Order: sequence, then C-alpha cells, then structure tokens
Amino acid sequence: MRVAVDAMGGDFGPAVIVPSSLIALADPEYPDLSIVFVGQHDKIEPLLSRMAEDQRRRVHVVDAPDEVAMSDAAARAVRSKPKSSMAVGLQLLKTGEADAFMSAGHSGAVMAGALGIIGRVPGVARPALVTVLPTLKGRSMLLDLGAVTDPKPRFLVQYAIMATTYATHVLGLPNPKVALLSNGEEPSKGNLLVQEVFPLLAATPGINFVGNTEGKELLRGDIEIFVTDGFTGNVALKSMEGAVSALTQVLREEVTKGIVRKALALMLRPALREVRLRLDYEEIGGAPLLGVNGAVIVGHGRSRERAIANAVRVASRTASQNIPAEIARSIQASGAIADVTV
Amino acid sequence: MRVAVDAMGGDFGPAVIVPSSLIALADPEYPDLSIVFVGQHDKIEPLLSRMAEDQRRRVHVVDAPDEVAMSDAAARAVRSKPKSSMAVGLQLLKTGEADAFMSAGHSGAVMAGALGIIGRVPGVARPALVTVLPTLKGRSMLLDLGAVTDPKPRFLVQYAIMATTYATHVLGLPNPKVALLSNGEEPSKGNLLVQEVFPLLAATPGINFVGNTEGKELLRGDIEIFVTDGFTGNVALKSMEGAVSALTQVLREEVTKGIVRKALALMLRPALREVRLRLDYEEIGGAPLLGVNGAVIVGHGRSRERAIANAVRVASRTASQNIPAEIARSIQASGAIADVTV
Repeated sequence: MRVAVDAMGGDFGPAVIVPSSLIALADPEYPDLSIVFVGQHDKIEPLLSRMAEDQRRRVHVVDAPDEVAMSDAAARAVRSKPKSSMAVGLQLLKTGEADAFMSAGHSGAVMAGALGIIGRVPGVARPALVTVLPTLKGRSMLLDLGAVTDPKPRFLVQYAIMATTYATHVLGLPNPKVALLSNGEEPSKGNLLVQEVFPLLAATPGINFVGNTEGKELLRGDIEIFVTDGFTGNVALKSMEGAVSALTQVLREEVTKGIVRKALALMLRPALREVRLRLDYEEIGGAPLLGVNGAVIVGHGRSRERAIANAVRVASRTASQNIPAEIARSIQASGAIADVTV
Repeated sequence: MRVAVDAMGGDFGPAVIVPSSLIALADPEYPDLSIVFVGQHDKIEPLLSRMAEDQRRRVHVVDAPDEVAMSDAAARAVRSKPKSSMAVGLQLLKTGEADAFMSAGHSGAVMAGALGIIGRVPGVARPALVTVLPTLKGRSMLLDLGAVTDPKPRFLVQYAIMATTYATHVLGLPNPKVALLSNGEEPSKGNLLVQEVFPLLAATPGINFVGNTEGKELLRGDIEIFVTDGFTGNVALKSMEGAVSALTQVLREEVTKGIVRKALALMLRPALREVRLRLDYEEIGGAPLLGVNGAVIVGHGRSRERAIANAVRVASRTASQNIPAEIARSIQASGAIADVTV
C-alpha cells in the first residue's frame, strides 16, 4: 500500500510527521507499506538521510511548495493553493499514484479538498468527519463531527451505513451496534431531527440499530457507532475532551500537594501513564473521511509520534480494504441512495 | 425562608431526603431556614422523632399520599396526581405557604408541574433547565438541558438574561461572561440556530456576551454561562459525565493492578477523594428552573446527603433573592420580552 503523507500538516510539521511516519514503515506487520511524503522537498529530504537502505527504497518525496495554514478558510484552502501538500497529496490519490492519503492538517480543509479533487462515493449525499474513540471495552465511532452542521435526516442514515462498513472492515467490529445520540434513551426523545431519523434508521436493512442513547454511553463500549449531526457531534467530543482535561488537571494538583503525595504519585506514575494512554483518543491516531471516493485519513491536529504512526497504519488498512467501493455497495444494498443533485 | 422539600422524589426517597435536608437546617449560616416536608406522612414522621426540640419547631410535614415515578410521563405526572408531593409542594409555593420548592425527582415532571401550577415569569417565553457545573476556577451554568429541544432563537436570548440574573444574585458572580456553545469559536461557526442567535445576543443589553465557544471550555472556568438548545445541552452534560466516569474507572483499574499500586493508591486516597469532590457536580446539589414564577430547585436524581443538603441551601438563597422578580425586571430592561401567546 502506498500511503501519501501530508508532511506539512498538523501543528508540528515535517520534523514530527516524517520520523513518526517512518515508525509505521518499520513495523513488521506492514511489510507492503510504502510512503510518499508530500511537502517542501528541502525540509523533508534531510530527515531521510540516516535511513537504512532497504527502508529508504520504500520512501518517496513529492515536492509541494505551498502550505495550508490552520487559519486558512477551509473551503478555499486547497483550491486556492494547488501546489500545497494537501492538494498534491489528494491528486496522487486521484491518479492512483497513492492508495491512501493521510493528513494531520485542518480537517475541514482536507474534507473540502477531498470533495473537490476526488469527489464523493457514488450514491453518498454528504461525507462525514468521524472520530474513533477509545472506550472501556475497545473502540467506538462518533460521526459526524462538523462536516455538516444541519444535516437532512437521510444523511444520518448514510452515516450509519458508512460507519457500519468501516467498523466491520477496518476496525474488526462485526455487526456493530448503531445508536442515535439523543437527550434520552426512549424512542420518543430527541429534537426534531432525531425524531425524523429514528424511524428511518429502524427501517434500514444492513445495520444493527439499537435506538436512542445518551452522551454518557460514548466511552462505555457497549455501543460501537454513534450517529449525530455535525454540530452536536463536535460539541459532545469537545465536551469529553474538556472533562478529561479538567479531571487530569485536578488530579495533578491534588497528587502534588505536599511532599508525601508527590512521592506517592511519582511511584504511581506508570499507572497514571497507562490511564492516559488508555483514554487518550489521540493515540488512536487517525479517523477516516467517510463517503469521499478514496482512502483519506485525518490525523488529529495535535498528533504526536505514536498518533501519526498509527494514522499511517490506519491509512494503509483503509486502502487495503477498498472502503469506498464497500460503502458504495452497502449504500446500494440498503436502498438509501442519495439523489446527489440535491 | 420556608423551603418546601419533596420528600418522595429522587432515587432514594424520604430515608435519604429527610435526614439530608436536616443537615441544611442545622447549618448555622441558615438560621432563618424552615423546612416543609411534603410526602407520605407516615414515612416522614418517624425520621423526625429524634430531633432536638428547637430544630423540630422549624420543621413541618404536609401529607401527600401519591407518588410521581421516574417512569411517569413528565407532562402529565403532576396534573394527573394532584395529591403527589410535587403537586402539593408546588401548591404551597403558589399560595405563599412556602418561599421555595426543592425536588430531587424527575426534572421534566417538576418543570411541567411548575408551569401548570405556578406558571411563567411575566415576559418569559420558555423556562429553562439549568445545571451549575463545578469548574477549575469556580462555577459555571449550562442551559438549557432539555426543557426545549428545538428552541426559537429568542428563547436563547432569554436564557442568557435569566442566567445572568441568577449568576449575579445567587452564585455571586458579578458581570458573568455569556457564551454560545458551538462547534468552533469563530463567529461564523455554528448550526443554523447558533448563527441566528449570535447577532441577537451581541445586540442584547445587560449581558456580557463573549461569542461562540467550544465544549472543552465548559469546565475550564473562564466563562460563567453557556447558552445552548436543550438537546445539545443535554448531550454535552451527559458526555462530560460519561468521560469523567470512564476516566475514573480506568484510574481505579490501573491503581489496583498489583499489591504495590494498591498500597500506594490507598495512601493517596485522600487526594483521590478530593479530586472527586472538586469535580463532582452532584455535590453542588441543586439547579434552578429559570423562568418559572417562583423559586424551584431541582436536585440531581442520584443526589446523596451532601447534594440534598446543598440543594436545600440553594433553594433558600434563591427564594431570599426573589429571582423571578429580578428576571422579570431584567427581561423588561433588555427589551427581550416574549409574546407569551406564541
């Protein structure tokens, strides 16, 4: 699998992205992985100088002098900068010179760029931004995260189908449970959108719809797929981030109050580190854009070594499963085909 | 202040609610507090038998044989059970026999009952369910939590005004910052509702509107009031609850892996307990129904001793500040008066 990596995206740039991607390249479980770094040639090449010969052969560099900044307007960034790493990387995906594209840059810009350059899977009305969450029992998916803030009910039906396909083929979760994020579990709960979507999901073949669920279930691990509008999904995700961050800070303050607590906390550090790793969703490393016509993985903006390496692995697995074709098939089978002219 | 307490509401019933309320009664900072327990007479009286004479004089019991169950339909529960503790307690508030009403029962039922029995503050379109959150720096308010899942834009403007009044008078937060919960901080972000509400809030006098904000700010403490629709507010709150619960569980698992960690964790127990107390929003104990024409405080359903006691204190303070009159005044002053016929 040839994964094109946006070497410029993310808060850290090539100095973090290139060596982190090479961790995935060195992973013996990915012997067929090759990486095409896309970005400013002179910043990337020096980072490859000390590679072993056999690995160096699996790495290519494609020059892309422009940069897309986090501050650029998402919708226009890629279109107005055709020589940016995002635009060039997506072009490689389109022409088949790469099998997947991974960027840790501005997710909105990646989405807009992917729509402009590679387009949608046939039959898909709107692609979705997804996050893969670490739960107490494994993994769950939450979508949409803001690609569409005011979706039509049928978009959410497609989200459920696309996520079921991805969870089954890439995450290894057979027959994943799909729930509608709501303000209560009863079928009567929900805002107007949820009340319209509920019967549609209940009538959709090929998904394992279990009904409405509440935000407190997101990390519990009993449900694998949470479907919601992009506005609510974003708020839910950020609310969880904030809660984890606040709890972590209070914990840090309390366990460093005084010399005795400090010493105890120091001895417990391995435990505290494992807590962080188990629930740090950045560690998962990559989330797919579902519904675009190619394997596009967005790394989290603050992604570090492990997260970038994992995002490259995810990109490789996503490409090898040919997810866009699988999504087209399952959308077709469910009868939930969008009139793409709408 | 005479606080009517719903002795039957909540998951625990009189055996928890009565003794917990008496903790507030014994608080020397509330010398003028008296409590009217409303509920099944024969279940309440035995719990008062061992009280000191001087405190017993500040406690009354009003019989209310019916019970509102958590499973009852919120809208009809109070209307169909006029002899329930909720209905009788709200009647006491209406007739002036009580200055405030506190219930740890079904918040939707309390809201519906309050609307039916005491009605709205003049000029208020829709009351809101609020939660008061513990933050890293103090307290914040999040509303609405589900009273109205699909509000009109002007409802949110009133939420901002009502919360500003409450934060100033009851929480002691002068000039509280008001933000609109959104999927990004830029003024251009938001779903259709947020985009309509933003300019309205920016043009409302008497509130300190600071713009859009993300869910991760909810517990940080830099902003005091978060305004959102009832659907999103509920999802955000439950998502935070779930995140805290998951992190706590992982922490518990990791610090009890092996005898050494167990011993260290045992010694750190005071620190861990303080972490829980500092971020456990149940400890705050009570949240107001803002916009109903009386002081009505809802305790969290799983409220325990401390939370119930605090909810009674909050009810007393809310009553002493005459919040409904203050809200009527500030709504009038802002010009955001609702046409209550709509």
